[in-house]
Amino acid sequence: MKTPSALAMVPFVSVDHMMKLVHSIGLERVLSDLATYIEQDFLRWDLFDKTPRVASHSAEGVIELMPTSDGEVYGFKYVNGHPKNTRDGLQTVTAFGLLANVSNGYPVLLSEMTILTALRTAAMSALAAKHLAPKGATTMAMIGNGAQCEFQATAFKAVCGIDTVRLFDVDAAATKKAARNLADSGLKVISCTSPEEAVAGATIITTCTADKQYATILTDNMVGSGVHINAIGGDCPGKTELHKDILLRSEIFVEYPPQTRIEGEIQQLAPDHPVTELWQVFSGQTKGRKSDRQITLFDSVGFAVEDFSALRYVRDQLTHSGLFLELDMLADPDDPRDLFGMVRRAAPAVAA
Amino acid sequence: MKTPSALAMVPFVSVDHMMKLVHSIGLERVLSDLATYIEQDFLRWDLFDKTPRVASHSAEGVIELMPTSDGEVYGFKYVNGHPKNTRDGLQTVTAFGLLANVSNGYPVLLSEMTILTALRTAAMSALAAKHLAPKGATTMAMIGNGAQCEFQATAFKAVCGIDTVRLFDVDAAATKKAARNLADSGLKVISCTSPEEAVAGATIITTCTADKQYATILTDNMVGSGVHINAIGGDCPGKTELHKDILLRSEIFVEYPPQTRIEGEIQQLAPDHPVTELWQVFSGQTKGRKSDRQITLFDSVGFAVEDFSALRYVRDQLTHSGLFLELDMLADPDDPRDLFGMVRRAAPAVAA
Repeated sequence: MKTPSALAMVPFVSVDHMMKLVHSIGLERVLSDLATYIEQDFLRWDLFDKTPRVASHSAEGVIELMPTSDGEVYGFKYVNGHPKNTRDGLQTVTAFGLLANVSNGYPVLLSEMTILTALRTAAMSALAAKHLAPKGATTMAMIGNGAQCEFQATAFKAVCGIDTVRLFDVDAAATKKAARNLADSGLKVISCTSPEEAVAGATIITTCTADKQYATILTDNMVGSGVHINAIGGDCPGKTELHKDILLRSEIFVEYPPQTRIEGEIQQLAPDHPVTELWQVFSGQTKGRKSDRQITLFDSVGFAVEDFSALRYVRDQLTHSGLFLELDMLADPDDPRDLFGMVRRAAPAVAA
Repeated sequence: MKTPSALAMVPFVSVDHMMKLVHSIGLERVLSDLATYIEQDFLRWDLFDKTPRVASHSAEGVIELMPTSDGEVYGFKYVNGHPKNTRDGLQTVTAFGLLANVSNGYPVLLSEMTILTALRTAAMSALAAKHLAPKGATTMAMIGNGAQCEFQATAFKAVCGIDTVRLFDVDAAATKKAARNLADSGLKVISCTSPEEAVAGATIITTCTADKQYATILTDNMVGSGVHINAIGGDCPGKTELHKDILLRSEIFVEYPPQTRIEGEIQQLAPDHPVTELWQVFSGQTKGRKSDRQITLFDSVGFAVEDFSALRYVRDQLTHSGLFLELDMLADPDDPRDLFGMVRRAAPAVAA
């Protein structure tokens, strides 16, 4: 039987390929590059088909499809969120994604996105902070030391130039794990025993905890003026991390308001509470930080365009990295109307 | 480096695997089995999470995601529809699909669905006809001899017991191709030179043409009483095949009314025109055909539950067929919070 034509093959980037790709390019470089790709796409914001994610909720968690398109390339991510998975030794979040040509609908990339989502989330946070944090910020408090923690710390080093990270988690073992992973990162790592200790002296405060409930990781008295808050963990309905009073003192920046109002910290606020869209800051249409004393807050929930940027980056590495497998995923008969004939001709030869 | 655990691996059924699976089981048997799986799922209709498909339209075509869930298993299909693809030697429709566990969000099957969609569409049509066509129907007219044609003919032989198929297409080459592919099918194949000739003596009329426009493949005078019409080609907004007068004389059966009213033949009718849902017929809640003289019409557009059934069937064959590849698609660190550590430990050893 003839082998499938090139058109029928889809490059697949496995978890192993993704890890090899990160090491071949270098983690900090990958994070910087992803921030650049995301910024490029936010600068052409109007081009994107922006649909809210399509969620299938159950008692245990959620499975979501996040599609978008820039008119030439279509992308989507499959991602689950199951907080209780950790208890069973599973990832809370796993993901994969796909890019396809809009003009003919043929997929051009299938990729793991569990690691890639961690990378793009960190790159997005650091990109927002590059535009919003006080100039010269060198110290970040990192509250919540789970799966996303070290990616955040490394991205802020690579993109924003921070040199010190102050870790805190309610579970000391998580802090120990993060400190160990960051030991040779070039960052000064300080393990703290309370959130108050962690935020002391920090100009950037990142919150990244995983409880699926309304929680108050930061209370109002813990946040002084002149800081940038990077709030990652409030990312689904019913899940927030910050006390409402902090929100009221902050200038709030978001990815895509219709989604953030449902999923982000601002679900605690009135539906018309003023927020600024990040693409407007990146393009210079709106000023980001207006004074050294201001509190800026990035209310991060993760948006389909960021996944699109990340997949675009991975696709651009395929040729020189060679880190992919060709998947025979698309039927490609010689005559497109003869799908049946293709199946028929694949019959094993009958023994004489 | 240690290999990924079983949890991180997703079975992938390629196009080649799918063709081998069809031949190892036998095409007619696969079509009958799929009809059984679809019927089973239609009999538990209420369990399914029924969302309209999520479509991304462009000038050239559409890319769609079709998710559904029965509360235990989640499934979705990616499918494109690009009528002009044939001109470029590409498939009009390509597809792949996925099943995942609702309880933890982990994917359990990735499969090609270009061939599988052709199979399930034919199985669905034959299943509907088994319940609706006049008893003892042996002859089917097949108008439109493109990629779906021979699958339909074979499914109607396997599920409904037809023995004769009368082919017509505006392109004689398509008819020739279909006749050649069906030569050793056990069906009596009659190639016709007009639609009028094709429908003569047929008790079942299948229309399956691909123009993306309002067309009239069947006019009212061509359809006598006591036939079953299986209308496949009217499957997106702006695309229909039957004259409105035929619809007004028929009792109309559909998969899922909210979708069919937008995409099917009945987009020509008032939004409250009475239709019957097939699951009600399968379950015996509603009578299908009420007399020998009646015209029954299955206005087929394809629904997510059918893809779910088809994927469920493929998953059930994995163990004994062995026809799949394990894809390293899900990151699976020993400690779920230590995704970063997993990436870090994958670094290549530094040469001394």
